Amino acid sequence: MEDNHLSKPVHVAILGATGAVGSEFLTLLAERHFPLASLKLLASERSAGQQISFQGETLTVEAVQESSFEGVDVVLASAGGSTSKRWAKVAVEAGAVVIDNSSAFRMDPQVPLVVPEINPQAAAQHQGIIANPNCTTILLGVAIYPLHQVQPIQRVVVATYQSASGAGARAMEEVKTQAGAILRGEAPQPEILPYPLAFNLFPHNSPLKENGYCEEELKMLHETRKIFGEPELRVSATCVRVPVLRAHSEAVNLEFSQPFSVEKARDVIAQAPGVRLVEDWQQNYFPMPMDATGEDDVLVGRIRQDLSHACGLELWLCGDQIRKGAALNAVQIAELLLEKDWLKPGQHLATC
Amino acid sequence: MEDNHLSKPVHVAILGATGAVGSEFLTLLAERHFPLASLKLLASERSAGQQISFQGETLTVEAVQESSFEGVDVVLASAGGSTSKRWAKVAVEAGAVVIDNSSAFRMDPQVPLVVPEINPQAAAQHQGIIANPNCTTILLGVAIYPLHQVQPIQRVVVATYQSASGAGARAMEEVKTQAGAILRGEAPQPEILPYPLAFNLFPHNSPLKENGYCEEELKMLHETRKIFGEPELRVSATCVRVPVLRAHSEAVNLEFSQPFSVEKARDVIAQAPGVRLVEDWQQNYFPMPMDATGEDDVLVGRIRQDLSHACGLELWLCGDQIRKGAALNAVQIAELLLEKDWLKPGQHLATC
Repeated sequence: MEDNHLSKPVHVAILGATGAVGSEFLTLLAERHFPLASLKLLASERSAGQQISFQGETLTVEAVQESSFEGVDVVLASAGGSTSKRWAKVAVEAGAVVIDNSSAFRMDPQVPLVVPEINPQAAAQHQGIIANPNCTTILLGVAIYPLHQVQPIQRVVVATYQSASGAGARAMEEVKTQAGAILRGEAPQPEILPYPLAFNLFPHNSPLKENGYCEEELKMLHETRKIFGEPELRVSATCVRVPVLRAHSEAVNLEFSQPFSVEKARDVIAQAPGVRLVEDWQQNYFPMPMDATGEDDVLVGRIRQDLSHACGLELWLCGDQIRKGAALNAVQIAELLLEKDWLKPGQHLATC
Repeated sequence: MEDNHLSKPVHVAILGATGAVGSEFLTLLAERHFPLASLKLLASERSAGQQISFQGETLTVEAVQESSFEGVDVVLASAGGSTSKRWAKVAVEAGAVVIDNSSAFRMDPQVPLVVPEINPQAAAQHQGIIANPNCTTILLGVAIYPLHQVQPIQRVVVATYQSASGAGARAMEEVKTQAGAILRGEAPQPEILPYPLAFNLFPHNSPLKENGYCEEELKMLHETRKIFGEPELRVSATCVRVPVLRAHSEAVNLEFSQPFSVEKARDVIAQAPGVRLVEDWQQNYFPMPMDATGEDDVLVGRIRQDLSHACGLELWLCGDQIRKGAALNAVQIAELLLEKDWLKPGQHLATC
């Protein structure tokens, strides 16, 4: 159990409390002994009235409204972009800091986009809203930023293996239902996802842009640049949805301007925060989604010298996209604000 | 139905007739009206006596022995490397041409490694054995060689999504059994594959080499070089087993020495043999394993200018690894030998 060394308890609201990430927020607040003065569960009208137990108490989900944020210090939001756009400013005007898991504010130059292991100091400059990056971006960033600090990365080529739960809890259920149908010899029915995913896979179905990339792939480019503070970093991603229930994987090719030894890379990864080196070369055992599920760390392995580029490294990673890829990262941002006393908006002098 | 324009019927033996690829050989010989004078089914002692129906007749599987190849013109072999090593020379001494699907002879400088769409002329030089490349290599090669002919490829970075059936019919059944167990709330049991694959995935479990690559990944490097006749071609692969039943997918990043326009690449792919351009940008519909299953063509889509490299292209492909990735390619080699009258070993003058 991590000891947060946090001082004063704060009033927290979860916006989108009934979703997959919302439920993970609850798990993490309890697990991490987050210093709660109070906890309010907010969701849409549709989910209002649901009862959720938390640390022995039964909490009732409330429909979000104008008065919901009075007295709230921190809002952990994961209710989609339009909900965040609708309510984030209301919460900020009420005096809360909103840590938002949607894509609504990520590329807003006024909004810090934060991964605590990478750019904690960016959080100091918040004006009430701090954005949580996209799941695949967080997992990639946590794994490769330690290498980038040793020697600047020039280019990233990444292919993802994204689990069904990245599209929500209902997509995860859909894959199971489809698998059952196929095992019974019936045709799988897609409902949430556009095509059958059980025993199949397809390129990520986020909207396509003129340049042929989908939004998910461009998030990996633009968000990584913003988090790393490297507006010229070259990133090309291919994002793919696979019939895994939970935890995303990524095959990552890195180019540096000089050779980066595999030994050195292993040492760096082994010592980096939020990352765990998982390599058993004797057993041919490396990170797998089933082992990354429920873990805080991003699992990294198969680090090897790229045979096609003298200054290249290949690596493989798996991470729980609901946990570090979403809820955990947001809770870590909240812990950072408390620890550094950065709750109030303004021009804090970053000290980390 | 393809008209093979083949003249004289030949005597064919299938070695490994009871396996997944063996059964696909039978399907293809019938579908393609391969000119058979006779068909002999060979397998290990264990499978001898099995009866298999073929075009209205019932054929009995025979245990392979020294005399099995007398009078045989063409052996289609897919019974694993050690069986091929044991029997290929026996067959050649009996006067047959062996088209071998195992890895036993692929890198032998005396043995042509052939993909008919890429290097048919190499088959002319055979000394009795012609090797069929690894499945992922064939699918990649067929898709990118047409581009390579327009402008030489400098470097390939590829991540694969390999289905269970690449590890054999029993691995495919294992994934289904594991999925059923998970749906019932039971623990999945790995038997053929080293780790549970249902709703999970893992780096390809072929033996690891000193350089950190597994054998499957190095096949993609060395075999592509040999087939393309480009001993310096730079290729780096990450091979991953995914819980798909059949058909492999690959995310492919290509580097050229000059920019390669996306328009041009689409035109080239659309006109290339053995490849089909599958891109519906309006519907966000691209190649998927479920659509590649049972197809002869490799499906290619999502061709886009690499945002991280001025001379780069990204593309995505799916192909049936039992069909074009194995059995179909071998049958096409046999058709090529008949069409060109290259059955006899020797220094034929290649004319294609």
